[in-house]
Amino acid sequence: MTKKKLNLKSAIQKQFRSQRQIGKAPGTITYMGNREDGTYAITVIDYSDNLFDFQTLTRVEDALAFKEQVNVTWFNVYGLSNEKEIDKLGNYFNINPLVLEDIVNTNQRPKIDEYDDYVFATLKMLYLNKDYEISTEHCAIILSEHNVLLFQEIELDVFEGVRDRIKNKFGRIRTRQADYLFFALIDAIIDQYFVVTENIAAKIDLLEEEVYNHPSQETAEKIQRLKKEVLSVRKWVVPVKDLVNRIIESEHPLVTKETKLFLRDALDHSIQINENIQLYRELITNLMEVYMTNMSNKMNEVMKVLTIIATIFIPLTFIAGIYGMNFKNMPELESEYGYFYVLGIMFLILIVMIIYFKRKRWF
Amino acid sequence: MTKKKLNLKSAIQKQFRSQRQIGKAPGTITYMGNREDGTYAITVIDYSDNLFDFQTLTRVEDALAFKEQVNVTWFNVYGLSNEKEIDKLGNYFNINPLVLEDIVNTNQRPKIDEYDDYVFATLKMLYLNKDYEISTEHCAIILSEHNVLLFQEIELDVFEGVRDRIKNKFGRIRTRQADYLFFALIDAIIDQYFVVTENIAAKIDLLEEEVYNHPSQETAEKIQRLKKEVLSVRKWVVPVKDLVNRIIESEHPLVTKETKLFLRDALDHSIQINENIQLYRELITNLMEVYMTNMSNKMNEVMKVLTIIATIFIPLTFIAGIYGMNFKNMPELESEYGYFYVLGIMFLILIVMIIYFKRKRWF
Amino acid sequence: MTKKKLNLKSAIQKQFRSQRQIGKAPGTITYMGNREDGTYAITVIDYSDNLFDFQTLTRVEDALAFKEQVNVTWFNVYGLSNEKEIDKLGNYFNINPLVLEDIVNTNQRPKIDEYDDYVFATLKMLYLNKDYEISTEHCAIILSEHNVLLFQEIELDVFEGVRDRIKNKFGRIRTRQADYLFFALIDAIIDQYFVVTENIAAKIDLLEEEVYNHPSQETAEKIQRLKKEVLSVRKWVVPVKDLVNRIIESEHPLVTKETKLFLRDALDHSIQINENIQLYRELITNLMEVYMTNMSNKMNEVMKVLTIIATIFIPLTFIAGIYGMNFKNMPELESEYGYFYVLGIMFLILIVMIIYFKRKRWF
Amino acid sequence: MTKKKLNLKSAIQKQFRSQRQIGKAPGTITYMGNREDGTYAITVIDYSDNLFDFQTLTRVEDALAFKEQVNVTWFNVYGLSNEKEIDKLGNYFNINPLVLEDIVNTNQRPKIDEYDDYVFATLKMLYLNKDYEISTEHCAIILSEHNVLLFQEIELDVFEGVRDRIKNKFGRIRTRQADYLFFALIDAIIDQYFVVTENIAAKIDLLEEEVYNHPSQETAEKIQRLKKEVLSVRKWVVPVKDLVNRIIESEHPLVTKETKLFLRDALDHSIQINENIQLYRELITNLMEVYMTNMSNKMNEVMKVLTIIATIFIPLTFIAGIYGMNFKNMPELESEYGYFYVLGIMFLILIVMIIYFKRKRWF
Amino acid sequence: MTKKKLNLKSAIQKQFRSQRQIGKAPGTITYMGNREDGTYAITVIDYSDNLFDFQTLTRVEDALAFKEQVNVTWFNVYGLSNEKEIDKLGNYFNINPLVLEDIVNTNQRPKIDEYDDYVFATLKMLYLNKDYEISTEHCAIILSEHNVLLFQEIELDVFEGVRDRIKNKFGRIRTRQADYLFFALIDAIIDQYFVVTENIAAKIDLLEEEVYNHPSQETAEKIQRLKKEVLSVRKWVVPVKDLVNRIIESEHPLVTKETKLFLRDALDHSIQINENIQLYRELITNLMEVYMTNMSNKMNEVMKVLTIIATIFIPLTFIAGIYGMNFKNMPELESEYGYFYVLGIMFLILIVMIIYFKRKRWF
Ligand SMILES: [Mg+2]
Ligand SMILES: [Mg+2]
Ligand SMILES: [Mg+2]
Ligand SMILES: [Mg+2]
Ligand SMILES: [Mg+2]
Ligand SMILES: [Mg+2]
Ligand SMILES: [Mg+2]
Ligand SMILES: [Mg+2]
Ligand SMILES: [Mg+2]
Ligand SMILES: [Mg+2]
Ligand SMILES: [Mg+2]
Ligand SMILES: [Mg+2]
Ligand SMILES: [Mg+2]
Ligand SMILES: [Mg+2]
Ligand SMILES: [Mg+2]
Ligand SMILES: [Mg+2]
Ligand SMILES: [Mg+2]
Ligand SMILES: [Mg+2]
Ligand SMILES: [Mg+2]
Ligand SMILES: [Mg+2]
Ligand SMILES: [Mg+2]
Ligand SMILES: [Mg+2]
Ligand SMILES: [Mg+2]
Ligand SMILES: [Mg+2]
Ligand SMILES: [Mg+2]
Ligand SMILES: [Mg+2]
Ligand SMILES: [Mg+2]
Ligand SMILES: [Mg+2]
Ligand SMILES: [Mg+2]
Ligand SMILES: [Mg+2]
Ligand SMILES: [Mg+2]
Repeated sequence: MTKKKLNLKSAIQKQFRSQRQIGKAPGTITYMGNREDGTYAITVIDYSDNLFDFQTLTRVEDALAFKEQVNVTWFNVYGLSNEKEIDKLGNYFNINPLVLEDIVNTNQRPKIDEYDDYVFATLKMLYLNKDYEISTEHCAIILSEHNVLLFQEIELDVFEGVRDRIKNKFGRIRTRQADYLFFALIDAIIDQYFVVTENIAAKIDLLEEEVYNHPSQETAEKIQRLKKEVLSVRKWVVPVKDLVNRIIESEHPLVTKETKLFLRDALDHSIQINENIQLYRELITNLMEVYMTNMSNKMNEVMKVLTIIATIFIPLTFIAGIYGMNFKNMPELESEYGYFYVLGIMFLILIVMIIYFKRKRWF
Repeated sequence: MTKKKLNLKSAIQKQFRSQRQIGKAPGTITYMGNREDGTYAITVIDYSDNLFDFQTLTRVEDALAFKEQVNVTWFNVYGLSNEKEIDKLGNYFNINPLVLEDIVNTNQRPKIDEYDDYVFATLKMLYLNKDYEISTEHCAIILSEHNVLLFQEIELDVFEGVRDRIKNKFGRIRTRQADYLFFALIDAIIDQYFVVTENIAAKIDLLEEEVYNHPSQETAEKIQRLKKEVLSVRKWVVPVKDLVNRIIESEHPLVTKETKLFLRDALDHSIQINENIQLYRELITNLMEVYMTNMSNKMNEVMKVLTIIATIFIPLTFIAGIYGMNFKNMPELESEYGYFYVLGIMFLILIVMIIYFKRKRWF
Repeated sequence: MTKKKLNLKSAIQKQFRSQRQIGKAPGTITYMGNREDGTYAITVIDYSDNLFDFQTLTRVEDALAFKEQVNVTWFNVYGLSNEKEIDKLGNYFNINPLVLEDIVNTNQRPKIDEYDDYVFATLKMLYLNKDYEISTEHCAIILSEHNVLLFQEIELDVFEGVRDRIKNKFGRIRTRQADYLFFALIDAIIDQYFVVTENIAAKIDLLEEEVYNHPSQETAEKIQRLKKEVLSVRKWVVPVKDLVNRIIESEHPLVTKETKLFLRDALDHSIQINENIQLYRELITNLMEVYMTNMSNKMNEVMKVLTIIATIFIPLTFIAGIYGMNFKNMPELESEYGYFYVLGIMFLILIVMIIYFKRKRWF
Repeated sequence: MTKKKLNLKSAIQKQFRSQRQIGKAPGTITYMGNREDGTYAITVIDYSDNLFDFQTLTRVEDALAFKEQVNVTWFNVYGLSNEKEIDKLGNYFNINPLVLEDIVNTNQRPKIDEYDDYVFATLKMLYLNKDYEISTEHCAIILSEHNVLLFQEIELDVFEGVRDRIKNKFGRIRTRQADYLFFALIDAIIDQYFVVTENIAAKIDLLEEEVYNHPSQETAEKIQRLKKEVLSVRKWVVPVKDLVNRIIESEHPLVTKETKLFLRDALDHSIQINENIQLYRELITNLMEVYMTNMSNKMNEVMKVLTIIATIFIPLTFIAGIYGMNFKNMPELESEYGYFYVLGIMFLILIVMIIYFKRKRWF
Repeated sequence: MTKKKLNLKSAIQKQFRSQRQIGKAPGTITYMGNREDGTYAITVIDYSDNLFDFQTLTRVEDALAFKEQVNVTWFNVYGLSNEKEIDKLGNYFNINPLVLEDIVNTNQRPKIDEYDDYVFATLKMLYLNKDYEISTEHCAIILSEHNVLLFQEIELDVFEGVRDRIKNKFGRIRTRQADYLFFALIDAIIDQYFVVTENIAAKIDLLEEEVYNHPSQETAEKIQRLKKEVLSVRKWVVPVKDLVNRIIESEHPLVTKETKLFLRDALDHSIQINENIQLYRELITNLMEVYMTNMSNKMNEVMKVLTIIATIFIPLTFIAGIYGMNFKNMPELESEYGYFYVLGIMFLILIVMIIYFKRKRWF
């Protein structure tokens, strides 16, 4: 409607990542992330109640041997930029191209899709890295009859606990089917969300302390950055509630009633995560208001000091100015005690003003 | 998106409470609260229409005797940090590990879960302690065929009225089954929420009086603290409405039609609690706006005083400055009544300005 | 999270009204209001198409005579603090204790409950009293087969029109059953809500006029008070829509299809009331923004005056100060026309500044 | 809660319009509008595929002749304050008193009611009058088997296009039944809503231009008035979506499947109207923020000028003041070049300050 | 309510575009856009697994030949202002007049309508033009048994990728039916929405950098313009989610189960688009707050400088003024070291004030 335009050309005259997919047929595997160093590896954990096997696959073809067995097999794929290998793997496991496209689409929002032979889920791992910053990593999981395929971009992940439980036969995981492993991976991801939200809560506490006790100009920027961090966490975490809920309500034969009990526990956690995030947003808004009020009150205080100084001294200076004039005929100047009278009047004005300001509660 | 980071490392490089659960199998009993002094006790109230028995159990095994009887038995467990004892008790009563995990999870949001043999509810007791501050205590309740298990962290609670009614045969409680006791406990918790919200309403009134009559810089902080208090009360109180509603709509055989009538009364109360909390949030927002407007109006008043003083005296001082110059040839200075003329002109300017400001309604 | 606490002890160390109910069995009749002067009276209007009888009951027992008749009987109870009499009446009419508790609970939110033999509704009468202020009075209505029981705290009410129509045989009321009387009472209450909302609209208009034409510091407080008034009206008025809707959708045998047509008209009105209240809230928010903008613009104007005065006279005063110095050797002072040159330069600076400010549109 | 009251008595001690209905039986015809000049007229358009007749009725009784015919008849009633005539007409057409009450209730929100023999709709005509201002007129439409009754307050309306199409046999209207005429009237009303919203959009554009290029104190008031206009348009326009939707979903025998196709088109338009209004509200809020930011930035600019002037000249004036003192023993005054040294120092201070402000980007 | 009116006459006394439709029968073809240069062309792509034909039609009648064939035919109409030709084409393909009206209604919100023989969808192409600005073009698509009709205003579009895939037999498009082409066109449109939202994200990043590092008065205007751009993108993009969802849930025989799988992928994308747009709105609001806080902090800094200067020098100047008075009898002036004492006192005051301000953290 207005004719002026945003003068942002240089920044936007670039190739956008989403343009990689323009004109391609749906189901074309197009890696959307930044980790294009060619990393690609597959590890396999094969287990049943009394069997545990760990291997690193050298060829995708070796996966087939595990695929048909009755043992639960966890295929773990690291690196998603090698589109050809992903395609090959997808063909071996008979995965729909639309799913393969979503596996390597790091912008894909968390969701679950059911197919005849398998269930596909994609969500984000959020965890604190060794610098205690929030890391976000793409993750895709496929549950088929005796297998779980897990796709991730880098080696770091949140599944060490699950691997330990399988290896060391902790809990019930070794006695259960693939759907329990599928749940256990999602549960491990959600458990880390609590750490992330607790980290956010700790930052809110810190900033609250800063706002109340030693606010500075940087405090506002910190609050706003935290708000933005919460927004970006929310983006990946909030849809997980629907994801879990949809597995529970699904009637897919691969998801057993026993596992659904555990999924309900995970649903419970993801509801709580959502509520926490909503609460944090309100606390941050609250905090920003406290900050603004503080700043505004300080400003008021500064203004009062200025006004008091000006109100007291400007009239006095004017009086001094009067008797600094050089008129020939100024009777007061000749008076013997004129100077002292004027000083007295000035003192009187000072007193009256101080009383006036006290009454107005200016200090 | 910006490169700068929140510089909050020291605060967040700590072990978060939620990390206690990382890597553990779902259903692992992990106490999440702060009361780890080892307190652990079980009391038993066993009653029917013409029987009343109160005991403190020395061994968990003694609970079994009461469990199978047809009398209603209220098992009251104090202290949740003793994970082994909780586990043992859970086994005796055949409780699902996921429930045991939630019993000791003090961060668990209020919810209800139905199992074949029992109903599990967890919610928060909110009450005013002896310093009239809002206390929040975790609470978990299990309803089984002839028994109610109540888990709490400390001895203080909101159930004295219920114990009295059982002991003294007030009302209908002694003639009813375990589901009525289950309801009576939840009802006692909700009744205290009214005290808490009335306490919040009293604080709003007080702060309103302060805002209108003697606002200070601290007033804003008090308002914001109250807002935060309401947010944290809301967090624990709002989900209780759904909790009660779900018992009413459940078709679990342990919850009788007669008790559902009473639960509908409790639902009614929890709806009202939610509406009150919503109203208080709006009143507090309103109050903050009044405060900000007051402050802004005061600022305006200060600015006006400054401007009036400056506008009146600065030009007059300039005139005095003119006649304070030391030029040799300044005819006015020689004039016999020059001084008095100038004083007169100054007075005139003063009058004109005062009229001008009056018209502008500056004072 | 912060350690500082709201220092509001004195105000909250009091007995809260809601504490009256703590520990009591559900269904205990506990009057929650302020009108504890012992007022208690029952009047009876008994009518059919060709019968009209008005009586004041001296004993509750006398009510029984009317109860069983086929004529429509309107029992009107004034005063709710006499808990024993309410209890007795409840027993005669076989009312559930939970209903009796709600009848005297003046904090009860508007709602409707259906029982086998009767329908119970509670809502608030809102009307303008003789000082044209909004009055709020608790009201409870029970519809049974041939009777309507109306409970209120004081004698003033909004039902005079209904009494007139019965007495004078206006409209269809004398030819209809008790459910039509039940509707007529609710309709009379809702009709008064329109007067209340129109009163609010009139206040908004008045305040709007004040904001645009002669805003003062009090204006903001008036706006905020009106906002609070709207919030408290909303609290009692908004749930009435659901109340009416639930009678319409109920399949209770006491509510006939013919009366539901009229209830739909009342529903229509309560929807409109809700929309009006929502609109008023937005108008008041709007008004507050206008006020704030006005204040901010006035502040700007004051600042500009200050800045113009200072910008013009401070440099000129400085020049005068220069030539007021007492240096021995100041050649300009000796110059015959020095004084006039300086006055000229000052005048020039003045003109330049005025042009500069005109260009900046400062005045 | 606070004791102070809104002192608005004079304004609210008047008879409110809604008090006209207090105490009356539901279904009492009570005109609620302002046009009480007694205007009352009925025109009739009677048509079928090959018949067109236009008449002005002198007596209500003449309507009966048209009522029973198989031709479509459009009865158009002008003027609603004549309650008796409306009542008579209602009796002839066997209209429920509740409908008659709504026909003359100019405050009635848009709605549709289905009765056995007819469908009743009421909504508002919004259109631009000849001064290009938004006019709002009450309108009620009844569809019976072969007739449409249209009630409006004044002669001006939005139906000229429909009359033309009937008279000149444009489009399909002459070949269709009464339900198509009913639709055509509603469609004509909705078409005008687009003109009204486009008018609002044009005003937003104009105000946007004003805000960016020459904002004044009045700009804020204009924005807020437009916001209020949008709120009042929304009030009448938003419920129309539900109205149309309910006709479509109704199974009333008078509304044919063919006409429902056209109603779906009208629904489409009313959805778009709602979206536009929502968008305009956001644009206006946006605009107000731009205005406020502009004002705030201007204020900052003014403050900077003030501060620069004060910061530069106040210290210099102080120095001049020092050497304007009259002490006997002031060595500098005697120095031959003292005056020039001091002038030099002042100039130096000036330069340093200008550099300092440049660095701070104050100008 | 207020009597003052928006004085915007000149701007609104014009013919509004929506007035073109006033009084016309529904289904009248009325072009609502701005591209009235008479452009009108039809191209045809006719294909099956082993056939590809491209033609430009000289006469509308030639379309009929392709219409009845079993091959998939894509009719592409450029230019919508030629209402007669659109009408003729509509007749050949037996399209409902209401659909034809919507095809040329460039204001039509995105929607889908199902008819017996065809499905009609209209939505907006949003893409970056060669100046990297967001372009919005109207688009309408009709799916009939073996044909897809695509209507657009200008030659530029987002379908080059689809044309290439058909021509070069990429992907599965040549082996599928018309419904897959219908999907492919909608998918191509949605894919471009990602580019548009990524463009918006890039602008947000740029503005964020500007706000944090070199904010100016223009920054606020840029932010608000971006907000408005997001609002207008949202208007056209948000309804597409419902559009796609309704095709998926439709049971129209022309949409096969295989194509619905792909439509679910498109639905997934349109959900993500909606979430992104919602996120961007919050980020922009956030950014505006950062800007306002920055500006407010800068203002504070300016005020402090002013106050420090005034607070230090005004009292000192007053002292100098005292000793600049010309009283005969001023003992201090005669004192030999009076001047130096006064200088010392002034220096002392200066030091005390600096310490005071340091303590208040004013600099
Ligand atoms: Mg694609
Ligand atoms: Mg994304
Ligand atoms: Mg978990
Ligand atoms: Mg999201
Ligand atoms: Mg908030
Ligand atoms: Mg705000
Ligand atoms: Mg776990
Ligand atoms: Mg759990
Ligand atoms: Mg929590
Ligand atoms: Mg209760
Ligand atoms: Mg909550
Ligand atoms: Mg109770
Ligand atoms: Mg109750
Ligand atoms: Mg209450
Ligand atoms: Mg009514
Ligand atoms: Mg309410
Ligand atoms: Mg009505
Ligand atoms: Mg609003
Ligand atoms: Mg605000
Ligand atoms: Mg009435
Ligand atoms: Mg109204
Ligand atoms: Mg239309
Ligand atoms: Mg409305
Ligand atoms: Mg249309
Ligand atoms: Mg919108
Ligand atoms: Mg039309
Ligand atoms: Mg439009
Ligand atoms: Mg796509
Ligand atoms: Mg839209
Ligand atoms: Mg996809
Ligand atoms: Mg805002």
